[in-house]
Amino acid sequence: MTDSLIQFQQDERGVVRLTLNDPQRFNALGEAMLMELQQALDTVAKDSRARVVVLAAQGKAFCAGHNLKDMATHVELAYYQQLFASCSRMMLSIQKLPVPVIARVHGIATAAGCQLVAQCDLAVASDQARFATSGIQYGLFCSTPSVPLVRNMPIKQSMEMLLTGEFIDAPTALHYGLLNRVVPAQQLDEAVDALVDSIVSKPRMAIRMGKELVYRQREMGLESAYQLAGQTMATNMLDIDAQEGAQAFAQKRAPQWQR
Amino acid sequence: MTDSLIQFQQDERGVVRLTLNDPQRFNALGEAMLMELQQALDTVAKDSRARVVVLAAQGKAFCAGHNLKDMATHVELAYYQQLFASCSRMMLSIQKLPVPVIARVHGIATAAGCQLVAQCDLAVASDQARFATSGIQYGLFCSTPSVPLVRNMPIKQSMEMLLTGEFIDAPTALHYGLLNRVVPAQQLDEAVDALVDSIVSKPRMAIRMGKELVYRQREMGLESAYQLAGQTMATNMLDIDAQEGAQAFAQKRAPQWQR
Amino acid sequence: MTDSLIQFQQDERGVVRLTLNDPQRFNALGEAMLMELQQALDTVAKDSRARVVVLAAQGKAFCAGHNLKDMATHVELAYYQQLFASCSRMMLSIQKLPVPVIARVHGIATAAGCQLVAQCDLAVASDQARFATSGIQYGLFCSTPSVPLVRNMPIKQSMEMLLTGEFIDAPTALHYGLLNRVVPAQQLDEAVDALVDSIVSKPRMAIRMGKELVYRQREMGLESAYQLAGQTMATNMLDIDAQEGAQAFAQKRAPQWQR
Repeated sequence: MTDSLIQFQQDERGVVRLTLNDPQRFNALGEAMLMELQQALDTVAKDSRARVVVLAAQGKAFCAGHNLKDMATHVELAYYQQLFASCSRMMLSIQKLPVPVIARVHGIATAAGCQLVAQCDLAVASDQARFATSGIQYGLFCSTPSVPLVRNMPIKQSMEMLLTGEFIDAPTALHYGLLNRVVPAQQLDEAVDALVDSIVSKPRMAIRMGKELVYRQREMGLESAYQLAGQTMATNMLDIDAQEGAQAFAQKRAPQWQR
Repeated sequence: MTDSLIQFQQDERGVVRLTLNDPQRFNALGEAMLMELQQALDTVAKDSRARVVVLAAQGKAFCAGHNLKDMATHVELAYYQQLFASCSRMMLSIQKLPVPVIARVHGIATAAGCQLVAQCDLAVASDQARFATSGIQYGLFCSTPSVPLVRNMPIKQSMEMLLTGEFIDAPTALHYGLLNRVVPAQQLDEAVDALVDSIVSKPRMAIRMGKELVYRQREMGLESAYQLAGQTMATNMLDIDAQEGAQAFAQKRAPQWQR
Repeated sequence: MTDSLIQFQQDERGVVRLTLNDPQRFNALGEAMLMELQQALDTVAKDSRARVVVLAAQGKAFCAGHNLKDMATHVELAYYQQLFASCSRMMLSIQKLPVPVIARVHGIATAAGCQLVAQCDLAVASDQARFATSGIQYGLFCSTPSVPLVRNMPIKQSMEMLLTGEFIDAPTALHYGLLNRVVPAQQLDEAVDALVDSIVSKPRMAIRMGKELVYRQREMGLESAYQLAGQTMATNMLDIDAQEGAQAFAQKRAPQWQR
């Protein structure tokens, strides 16, 4: 699969590494890239052995967003609608995925590339990475990137990025809430692996139920949110692994997960 | 009431101190503790002299959340549903209480204990306190704790806590927005009292109307939020103490509150 | 217009400077000030040459909020309802304005003055500025200010400001998300102008569509938000300036905007 736009690797622990592999185009999210990324996410969604996804990229940049060069050759509303619908569908698939998705950001992430970082559940960046919603520089306001951006960051900082299109560095992105960790480039894999190891040491069903619940309840009023969360937790508690966890806790031993 | 799971103290200013008093079980929120805490909150809700609640705890820990040991002995959906419903009801009572609730956090706050801190209106912690949504360590994702957590903190930092179950220290919790203040252990009461003193120096009715409004409008769209807030403020302005405040302002003297 | 409560200046680039001009009353938002500010915003909304608004103020303070002295002389629900409705309408006009609004905050901003800062799209402050939702000091909880406050800042920090009425300094306000920049007083205009210059270098239509979209999608669930954002972006892409931007990008030259 070395010619693919997406490299797909999965180890025996269920750690899936999806790597954007179009370094010459700075891993731009063209139609083919979006299609392959969607297929990869759909594959993970159906694979009960998958436990966590690391989304990485080849080459100098992490992801430069949409391919403006391609877009300039299709002056048609239906084409653009289709393109942004495909991209939004892929972004929603990340949130709907039953396993956590960690962005491993080693270089610049701009426009829909910055959106990709914001849409992931967790994000770890090299201190060399930089972030911008730069579409406005070319007359195209980063509307779809603004969706996860304002759900990660304060509104005034989001607005500044969207209106100016200017870069922020990785420590600033961390401070704003766009990232979980910033580390020197040579420690990037180590920092990602620490999160991966922590996640794969937990039972799959609890993570799946929990991830879904967090995003669903977040869109609700407080009372409805508590109602759904309470139901989710009661159901989770009946799961074989939660029962094992509670027994292990009571017996002061390490739990032995079934799955 | 020294044998109670909740110590209830109220001074002549209307400052209510509720102290979790089950240090041997790290103040776990078992059925009895939840019931007593609910009763205490219901008592405060009906008491027109109450002005502010300080929620504190005895022993080494602040609160270790649900009692997993107890839960392991009841393998029944209805039991778990009931338990989480009781706990959520108590948490909602904190938000609905007509007076502000300040968490005084001197030690670890885990799972529903961390939720308790997040659900309070204000929170002051010792620099020795630590916070975790640790349920996932035992196969039980902290779904109900995620409800106030994501309403206090950025989503990526919330997700990291929920997925890894790992501790954050008090300065980190402050940085994320989970706390209002972090102070050395020996200054904890002083820092809590500064907030208490500030709140009891304000008129009760304005605080009551305001607290309710803040949480209600937060769940609305901007236009509806402004409509409700404007109505609330107009009604507040007719109150005897707001009239006194405006007169005092105009006459450049200190206001004399009626209540 | 030097006798006006609002000074209105517009340069050839479309930069509108609205300056609160009632320094003796600390630029309080009395009925007359609110009416003039509303008229100024309505004028900008209809002016297709306007590109950005800088909201500044004369005198020592930025804005002291409502005029409590005036309010004390009208003890009537209908009067207060009308006053807060006018103020909320003006605040909503800032968000609905087709061009970005930047608060230039050189001094204290209290109550509805602090709300004004929170409601602007961007805010730059002198390190001498201070912020408070101080109504509660006079028995009037800052209910309408709480609306944009909790949409800028974490909830616990918002609650603390609203319940205590105490001032925070500019660096703290920056840290909480209420501001984009804090600079020494003598660099305030320079810092504001950097944002102004960046915004006027972008095409007007993209900014207009983008600003509206950001606030609308923010109130929606994620799926609806993406749907609206995708439609907005497809429509934006058909605009003459976005086509020029994409061509310029493909040809590696600077874009030449039509408007």
